[in-house]
Amino acid sequence: MAKAIPSRSEDYSLWYNELVKKAGLAENSPVRGCMVIKPYGFAIWEKMQQTLDQMFKETGHENAYFPLLIPKSFLNREADHVEGFAKECAVVTHYRLKTDEEGAGVVVDPEARLEEELIVRPTSETVIWDAYKNWIQSYRDLPLLINQWANVMRWEMRTRLFLRTAEFLWQEGHTAHATKEEARSETRQMLEVYAGFVEDYMAIPVIKGVKTESERFAGAVDTFCIEAMMQDGKALQAGTSHFLGQNFAKAFDVKFTTKEGKEEFVWGTSWGVSTRLMGALIMAHADDDGLVLPPKLAPIQVIIVPVYFKDEDLEKITKAVNPILDALKERGISVKFDTRDTHKPGWKFAEYELKGVPLRLAIGPKDLEKGTVEVARRDTKEKSLQPMDSIVEHVAKLLENIQDNIYSKAATFREENTKEANSWEEFRELVEQGFVYAHWDGTTETEDKIKEETKATIRCIPLNQTKEKGKCIFTGEPSQGRVLFAKAY
Amino acid sequence: MAKAIPSRSEDYSLWYNELVKKAGLAENSPVRGCMVIKPYGFAIWEKMQQTLDQMFKETGHENAYFPLLIPKSFLNREADHVEGFAKECAVVTHYRLKTDEEGAGVVVDPEARLEEELIVRPTSETVIWDAYKNWIQSYRDLPLLINQWANVMRWEMRTRLFLRTAEFLWQEGHTAHATKEEARSETRQMLEVYAGFVEDYMAIPVIKGVKTESERFAGAVDTFCIEAMMQDGKALQAGTSHFLGQNFAKAFDVKFTTKEGKEEFVWGTSWGVSTRLMGALIMAHADDDGLVLPPKLAPIQVIIVPVYFKDEDLEKITKAVNPILDALKERGISVKFDTRDTHKPGWKFAEYELKGVPLRLAIGPKDLEKGTVEVARRDTKEKSLQPMDSIVEHVAKLLENIQDNIYSKAATFREENTKEANSWEEFRELVEQGFVYAHWDGTTETEDKIKEETKATIRCIPLNQTKEKGKCIFTGEPSQGRVLFAKAY
Repeated sequence: MAKAIPSRSEDYSLWYNELVKKAGLAENSPVRGCMVIKPYGFAIWEKMQQTLDQMFKETGHENAYFPLLIPKSFLNREADHVEGFAKECAVVTHYRLKTDEEGAGVVVDPEARLEEELIVRPTSETVIWDAYKNWIQSYRDLPLLINQWANVMRWEMRTRLFLRTAEFLWQEGHTAHATKEEARSETRQMLEVYAGFVEDYMAIPVIKGVKTESERFAGAVDTFCIEAMMQDGKALQAGTSHFLGQNFAKAFDVKFTTKEGKEEFVWGTSWGVSTRLMGALIMAHADDDGLVLPPKLAPIQVIIVPVYFKDEDLEKITKAVNPILDALKERGISVKFDTRDTHKPGWKFAEYELKGVPLRLAIGPKDLEKGTVEVARRDTKEKSLQPMDSIVEHVAKLLENIQDNIYSKAATFREENTKEANSWEEFRELVEQGFVYAHWDGTTETEDKIKEETKATIRCIPLNQTKEKGKCIFTGEPSQGRVLFAKAY
Repeated sequence: MAKAIPSRSEDYSLWYNELVKKAGLAENSPVRGCMVIKPYGFAIWEKMQQTLDQMFKETGHENAYFPLLIPKSFLNREADHVEGFAKECAVVTHYRLKTDEEGAGVVVDPEARLEEELIVRPTSETVIWDAYKNWIQSYRDLPLLINQWANVMRWEMRTRLFLRTAEFLWQEGHTAHATKEEARSETRQMLEVYAGFVEDYMAIPVIKGVKTESERFAGAVDTFCIEAMMQDGKALQAGTSHFLGQNFAKAFDVKFTTKEGKEEFVWGTSWGVSTRLMGALIMAHADDDGLVLPPKLAPIQVIIVPVYFKDEDLEKITKAVNPILDALKERGISVKFDTRDTHKPGWKFAEYELKGVPLRLAIGPKDLEKGTVEVARRDTKEKSLQPMDSIVEHVAKLLENIQDNIYSKAATFREENTKEANSWEEFRELVEQGFVYAHWDGTTETEDKIKEETKATIRCIPLNQTKEKGKCIFTGEPSQGRVLFAKAY
């Protein structure tokens, strides 16, 4: 097989695009900015979904489904919200096509114009809070803890597969609470759920923080986020959790009667992660030979390739492999035995490397004689001969080891590429390479200027920020602690 | 609790609507014809999804995701297809809103008009076959067995929750094959999967058949269906599986190289079921007190209600209930212990009846003394006292029994309301009450006239139709066998 993809050092951006396509994850569709998620890519997304869904349910949330289309007037109800989303909305104006009388196929039927235009949801706060008005009357109806898995659209001008697409898949949690404290605590709880998922399953370390005003979700009082480092040193926002205060409750008049009989507006949160996480997973771990998947999210964790010339050898190999397959499956390990005779072992090796399968076992006639299996790790590329009779145990341990190793590698990389800058000169240089902690005077004006000059943004004010007096690297004005700067996806 | 819903005999249609709302399944949204699926309704849908998804995967299918929006010109490519769907399409014409200069909030930005209008998918054959053109080159790429879970829109004029909504959730399988025989066999296989699901899980017997030309899917060569009887004697089409022949392959130029090196068009199928199944589930089993859920699809299979006056009694009851909860969960039975002190036991009994929970256990201080549990079945309303020490075993058996009983009841009802008609007079009378098998001359013209006069349609030509010479009930022309007539949802 010819080299499938360019290397990261040659062209990082092309490496990513080609990898996404060649590994069978996704491709562009004929609709501008909308992608097709291919079966292998979708299988990874399904594993993410299942894991997250379980975590949401364990924290008391239920799933529901709200309409795709939102009346235009709903967006108007919350001033910041409409400001944030109006410019990138797909708008439905008609509900019927008709046959063109001049033979140009079907055309929009001008008589089927909607009285009020409908927006394809860019996010669902408005339509959900409109429903909550009827669902919530008393403190007994609270908290209301709901999540939805859905597709949303934001008409982005520059799109990239998974990272920024006009349509994407996501989950959006929308909760309502009796008190500010409870809503704040929900916001933080979901941030922790996201951080736990990205670190434990995706094997990517994250920095938890709060967004500055200019990066806040349109309609939120506070936006919390997790930020991850990609292999080019750029940041990727991997999840956000918003404390909405009473903004949407007021916009949609959602009040409840307290235990004491008073009427009050409820407090809200919303939180989401999307197919963008697929982009993070790829960019954090993949190498020049293809994907590197953490075992916990790999659709195929172990691939077994028979290496043989004669058909009778395949029979013998199959006999030896069958009990291994059964034993691995019994342990909940997802394994595939690739017996296709249309491709040679070398081709298969490259293919599964490209697809990031964590472990490859190869078995040939000599292995049968000696009772061995060749085991190849995708993450380190290490190969070793292992005794066949303890292979199941070995594989189980290796998978755990690989999960840990992938995480450690990403953590080390991030550590090496995270610096503190104490002068503007130093900042400009360091921010080209990775994360930079630096002092900032707290104004949007300065933030904007830094962005203008360096393309770097404040990713977050870290939750674990240490109080430290200093001077803003740009203006020299006083600052109380360092914030995280980086260029970002 | 006051009577929640009207009875079926009072007003069947109102009974359905009120039940859907009061049981917390779904409600209308502010967008015409689009529904909100509420948490309890969605939990049932999720169980359906998981079961079907598993069945699809076991038959070799993989999930993927294709774009929500379809270029208008794509619909035009397959003549019957555009004819079938153009009249009920939501059309996206613009991609941006802007602030109205006259202060009317946001308005559609006339400068952001799309060059080509986009259709919110009513079904995805066109956009999927456009992708398949690139995915399929050789016989090695076949069969291609793909499914997608998605939302779709059809701008229906008269809508009803679950049964007919402008937006609905569904799955759509789209497969491509090297031979006609294989595609036909896939079509039939998926029909069997659907029939198996509806009978074994939803506990509704179905009739498998093929649609007449006028009821065929727009673009299909043959449409197979399963038809179920609701409690008012009407039919509900519960799933369809289409043999597409080479129609879409030709429309989208999807060819493959055979083993022998020839170029041929591929053969296609598509098949789907939707949230309409929720409507079927409700209408087939529910009674005047609420839902009756088959245990295999009930989000809560067993509800335990403590019956007490003194707090110390609740403590004692809880102590006795905890090991039962654990033991039931261990057996994979979904159980809930409702200890809310905001509602009385009687209120809870009615609530869980309304929600169709298959089994209710009630435990009070006297039960603790005597070592008994009151067990109430939702399907038959039978109550009995059971020994507490064998309750887990008893519950497990009862759940199986309830699943079977619900099916039998529906099967008996269908049998009692299925007749043969041998004259037009008889037909007109019988078709008001249920399913009617009758002779038909095979023409669309007759089919249309029968529909005009009786509102009944040919639901299908049953797969198990016996050859029997007869005369069309309407025209008296010769017929080779009876077809299934009914009024339908």
